[in-house]
Amino acid sequence: MDFEQSLHMNKGEGEASYARNSTNQNAGQNKMNPLIHEAVTSLWKYTNCLKKMVITDLGCSSGPNSLTLVKTAVDAIFRYCSDHKELLPEIAVLLNDLPDNDFNIVAKALSEFQQSTQGFGPVVTAMVPGSFYKRLFTSNSVHLVLSSNSLNWLSQVPEDLKENRIPMYDSDEGLRQEKRPFVVQACGRQFRKDLTHFLNARAQELVPMGQMVLSLVGTSSRDTTCQSIQPWDFAFLPLNDMASRGVISREMLDSFYIPVHGPSDKELMEIIEDEGSFEINNMQVHHLMTGTDKRPIIPKIERSRPGLHSSQQSCSISEARKASWMSS
Amino acid sequence: MDFEQSLHMNKGEGEASYARNSTNQNAGQNKMNPLIHEAVTSLWKYTNCLKKMVITDLGCSSGPNSLTLVKTAVDAIFRYCSDHKELLPEIAVLLNDLPDNDFNIVAKALSEFQQSTQGFGPVVTAMVPGSFYKRLFTSNSVHLVLSSNSLNWLSQVPEDLKENRIPMYDSDEGLRQEKRPFVVQACGRQFRKDLTHFLNARAQELVPMGQMVLSLVGTSSRDTTCQSIQPWDFAFLPLNDMASRGVISREMLDSFYIPVHGPSDKELMEIIEDEGSFEINNMQVHHLMTGTDKRPIIPKIERSRPGLHSSQQSCSISEARKASWMSS
Repeated sequence: MDFEQSLHMNKGEGEASYARNSTNQNAGQNKMNPLIHEAVTSLWKYTNCLKKMVITDLGCSSGPNSLTLVKTAVDAIFRYCSDHKELLPEIAVLLNDLPDNDFNIVAKALSEFQQSTQGFGPVVTAMVPGSFYKRLFTSNSVHLVLSSNSLNWLSQVPEDLKENRIPMYDSDEGLRQEKRPFVVQACGRQFRKDLTHFLNARAQELVPMGQMVLSLVGTSSRDTTCQSIQPWDFAFLPLNDMASRGVISREMLDSFYIPVHGPSDKELMEIIEDEGSFEINNMQVHHLMTGTDKRPIIPKIERSRPGLHSSQQSCSISEARKASWMSS
Repeated sequence: MDFEQSLHMNKGEGEASYARNSTNQNAGQNKMNPLIHEAVTSLWKYTNCLKKMVITDLGCSSGPNSLTLVKTAVDAIFRYCSDHKELLPEIAVLLNDLPDNDFNIVAKALSEFQQSTQGFGPVVTAMVPGSFYKRLFTSNSVHLVLSSNSLNWLSQVPEDLKENRIPMYDSDEGLRQEKRPFVVQACGRQFRKDLTHFLNARAQELVPMGQMVLSLVGTSSRDTTCQSIQPWDFAFLPLNDMASRGVISREMLDSFYIPVHGPSDKELMEIIEDEGSFEINNMQVHHLMTGTDKRPIIPKIERSRPGLHSSQQSCSISEARKASWMSS
């Protein structure tokens, strides 16, 4: 089965559905609010007259979190226009996820959202099925890209692991410790490749001076021995326990891969710099479990560098460290 | 329950699903092919350099017919560019239906379609949940609007009927014959109101010189006594039989409404003329059951009239007469 077709959160609204098991992801989204407001302000700052604004959430999934980010952005637009006596632009809200996502639930949520915005000028909506590591929109058509808890998901299991039959989480603890650096580095290489494709596709789709606000689960830059908890550890701990109790076989555990990676802030910055289309405006680290914030870990950078649209896009990145690992 | 939320074709791919019971609708779509090719040619004729083309099918439903019209349009673009040595534009395919449509099936079909177009430059896709009697897209953003077997569906049961408790299909044959003109005229008034909203919304969304190719089930303009078969007759005949055999109650039959109308070609032309945003390029009548075509019933009209975009859109309308009544 095609990887893009098979990967999706649990559908529906039942007990085991993503819709009812995504509270942590919502907490991560709320941390992005100030950055989304900042991005909306930047859009007006760099554009004389905004007649329409196209907003997208990439990796929206289905359930109560699907519209959280875009609602924040629409609220920010309404507030900005009210405060600055600007005419409201037409707003297009585009929600993306892989084709096997539960879009029937998203369609109903979008319909309710659209009804709630009646009287504010056209707010139109659409759902975009497809991988965000490829092109999703026409060139020069999107103003604001949002994404939370989604970029951790790789486009595929790293080939280095599958070809060499190296388990992601070996049932033998000694082998697991020995191979861990190789596993983490293989995922890191795939992450670099995927994020580069992501940035390149978005650079073509964003209007000049378009903005992105991204949030993903990360690990510490100080960890050079690959011992930091990776997002996939949270899933493998109970699976390992099940294997040790014979609920699943050890072979099954050894052949199971979760295509996910938690990059460090340093890793993220390097990939964004190397790809070259975006400028980082703001980068924040939040310890979601302890509630501690360290921000900004790097000073706000204001630079001039030629972008793919012959002017520069900005990328505000909010990195959520050691939080839950599920994609939103 | 909201009418827009409750109206949809049978979901899924089971025996009673729309996906497996829509062969007639497909035959109607195929009749539109020459008009779609003509519309694509017109777009190039009136536009010097087409870098992107946004195509939408309004009322796509789910199943094998969902992509038929847009595939024809994309083929027409590929062929035109190949024949005229034009660079292929970026293409966006947007499929619309009411929010309760089975968009999960549509998402998978779009994904397969997108894979089949790889190597032809970006073909991006989206699904747009909402009523086409309201705004669906931002202003000045769509090049080609397609729709088949959908505009017959009214936005609501005519209030005249519900308020006066007039059954759409009275179980008493005498009363049914007596009330038929009132029923048909009430549906006609609602159709005029709905189609006017449709044309007005599309006029705002289409680019200057944007094109529409529409197909819907019709009735004869020669019938002034409202005795022509209406699309809803096909559903009421078996229901009436069930009521006469006691399978359903007569009260149930008398309180059941199907919000659908089959306009005559004259009726259609008058509404389009009165709304004023569109110019009719071509209008055809097909007898789908007998296979007989009468085209064109009116000569091709080339006129100049101010449109909402200060230049003129064209509307090619293919009317399918006395065909099946189900929305595509």
